[in-house]
Amino acid sequence: MAFSYKKPFLSADEAASALGVEVQTIYAYVSRGLLHSESGGRKDRSKRYRKEDIEQLLLRREERSQPGKTARAALSLGQPVLESSITLLGEDTLFYRGKDVLKLSENQKFEDVASLLWDCEESYPFDTTWPKLSEECIGILNRLEGRPILDISRILLPFIEYEDAKAFRKDHKTYKKTSSSILRYLCLFSSGKTSSEGSISETLLSSWNKKKESSNYGSKLRLLEASLILSADHELNVSSFTARCVASSEASLYQVVLAGLAALSGPKHGQLTERASTLLSQSTGNLKKDKLLLEEKLRNGENIPGFGHPLYKKGDPRGKKLIEMVKRFYPNDPNVQIYLQFLKQVEELIEDYPTIDAGLALVSKVLQLPKGAGIGIFGIGRTAGWLAHAMEQYESGNLIRPRAKYIGNLPEV
Amino acid sequence: MAFSYKKPFLSADEAASALGVEVQTIYAYVSRGLLHSESGGRKDRSKRYRKEDIEQLLLRREERSQPGKTARAALSLGQPVLESSITLLGEDTLFYRGKDVLKLSENQKFEDVASLLWDCEESYPFDTTWPKLSEECIGILNRLEGRPILDISRILLPFIEYEDAKAFRKDHKTYKKTSSSILRYLCLFSSGKTSSEGSISETLLSSWNKKKESSNYGSKLRLLEASLILSADHELNVSSFTARCVASSEASLYQVVLAGLAALSGPKHGQLTERASTLLSQSTGNLKKDKLLLEEKLRNGENIPGFGHPLYKKGDPRGKKLIEMVKRFYPNDPNVQIYLQFLKQVEELIEDYPTIDAGLALVSKVLQLPKGAGIGIFGIGRTAGWLAHAMEQYESGNLIRPRAKYIGNLPEV
Repeated sequence: MAFSYKKPFLSADEAASALGVEVQTIYAYVSRGLLHSESGGRKDRSKRYRKEDIEQLLLRREERSQPGKTARAALSLGQPVLESSITLLGEDTLFYRGKDVLKLSENQKFEDVASLLWDCEESYPFDTTWPKLSEECIGILNRLEGRPILDISRILLPFIEYEDAKAFRKDHKTYKKTSSSILRYLCLFSSGKTSSEGSISETLLSSWNKKKESSNYGSKLRLLEASLILSADHELNVSSFTARCVASSEASLYQVVLAGLAALSGPKHGQLTERASTLLSQSTGNLKKDKLLLEEKLRNGENIPGFGHPLYKKGDPRGKKLIEMVKRFYPNDPNVQIYLQFLKQVEELIEDYPTIDAGLALVSKVLQLPKGAGIGIFGIGRTAGWLAHAMEQYESGNLIRPRAKYIGNLPEV
Repeated sequence: MAFSYKKPFLSADEAASALGVEVQTIYAYVSRGLLHSESGGRKDRSKRYRKEDIEQLLLRREERSQPGKTARAALSLGQPVLESSITLLGEDTLFYRGKDVLKLSENQKFEDVASLLWDCEESYPFDTTWPKLSEECIGILNRLEGRPILDISRILLPFIEYEDAKAFRKDHKTYKKTSSSILRYLCLFSSGKTSSEGSISETLLSSWNKKKESSNYGSKLRLLEASLILSADHELNVSSFTARCVASSEASLYQVVLAGLAALSGPKHGQLTERASTLLSQSTGNLKKDKLLLEEKLRNGENIPGFGHPLYKKGDPRGKKLIEMVKRFYPNDPNVQIYLQFLKQVEELIEDYPTIDAGLALVSKVLQLPKGAGIGIFGIGRTAGWLAHAMEQYESGNLIRPRAKYIGNLPEV
């Protein structure tokens, strides 16, 4: 499929060119019911054609000529590989179990959104008491001081799994209890605490940002809740798909999260948040200086992290939301204005929209969070999604075991 | 595809029934070149039809009627999802980079096979000096005494990764050096040693089986080498596919192996080896008693672990090979004969062949390895494969990011 993602509709000429046929053939397709045309709404009464329909036609044709090609293209934003009831990606928002995520991020607690993702209608999975770290666990934790947040989680989660034998029971109640424990353990590792009583956001904020008494506490907490909620799921991104693969072997939820964290560690996935933070640190507030800096990066062939998402034509609604919230909560803070102005400058220069990574980088800067907190928030948030995917995969009972096409050396005879 | 895996050829009647057409239509397909017929070799000159050809026809037809279905079926032994030059699965053997694995398992060292899988023609990646565990690492290791082998690996690998910053360099030389270090670290964790000088098999055997001076040492070492070699890769099983997903995000080789180990922990994957070991422990040498035991299991609806593989019609060549080697090396040992007789009994009762899991369980029993050694061998062996898949995935540069079909609650308007 060679044509661009940007336009939802094509003209008859464009459709003909995409399909490699004459315009007359397009009209023939319409009369044979193979293609729908819609009014373009213009005075000349020309019709327009949905890009999706053209793509479908191209796919059918490819599949007829080369059976198996559809399957080989499926791992890269191709035809769906499995069914899911968790997240629907829309044009300018996304939905968890049918609820608008942008609205959820305005007034919900992260724990409530996690319960929604885990489909916990019958009972709330977050007890009032938090899990406690064992002496053994604290002993190891002390040896890990100074390591990145998610690194500590990757070492300690399998350690804790062994102490939590009941997590191996295979029923919904256990899954949900274990899921809430895992989220809280990750929160403890990220905040450097050994126990807590508040919400996950409160625990993180009180550890990362000591100015609790300041007048902005409510806004800070909301930005953190929104960041966690917006990070929670995004359909089959690479880490969630990894989580589903591991769950399909019926490995425990701890192992699922471990594998998710492993995928998240990759520069093409979670590291984007940290790289966007680094970029934002370079803003000076001087328009001309910043422009020169960005242009130099482009000339050096560097990628600008945190901008452009293949699934959103009009920009990643998660990044947009976080930026809009920061604007609303800090209308007059001059330091915040510098970050906002810098993001706007990048957007205009590279003609692409900020993603959730840029949004999380901005929140980290505005809340003055420690290094690595941005990816920590994303990791804790996304863990809620991995756990939802794992439970859905367990329920399907399917083992993920694809085939490869062998193209290597042939056996010697 | 409703018909069974067992027969490679179908009669005209069977082909017609599978396709839901008249027999005459089958002949018409042949004359139109849509289907090949072969001589059945029988006197009545009836033709036979390849099952694969019928499956192709069914797939094409399904794809025409429901575009996308091929992609949705691809995760479960469907059409290939990616290309690979590592392992080719044959009818009664398998090939690593074109070399017959059954032959490799007769006389190669595991390290040499790992180098083959990693395509190390130019330089051998296993230095004479092994990596050493740091003081910090030994400190944690001491706290983990008594835990399962692979559990210790899952805790300590991310710990070691942080100490090995050069592992993040992205070039072939580093990949291969890191890969050999990871295999040796896993060997140290599995053997409870803090350093070594010999081969991986020698290190494991000297730790697991103290009777080094016995006349059977050579046979024992060979059985261990063969077990590691036969475990090393099996195309896109769930853990190798998981490893590729993680590698596609450009996460480090340590993270790739961690995720592979997470998938391996699942009851539908690695735990089969341990369950087969438990089954084998129940053999008594009394034919009648053993038969009653097995029949009771079947009546209770239990699965018999270690038998039946969907990809091999005539039995898993890896299981067959290990059993044959044990038979050859221990022609007169009465205890070994009991295990062999028990495996034969299961095979006849459930009419299915032993898999590599049954083979590894047998080797563990024959070599009197400690509990958990079977899955330890499989894990170390398979790590060589995960690392090969990771390097191949890095080279492709493709991010694995499939789409899901949303079937959940629709957004409220």
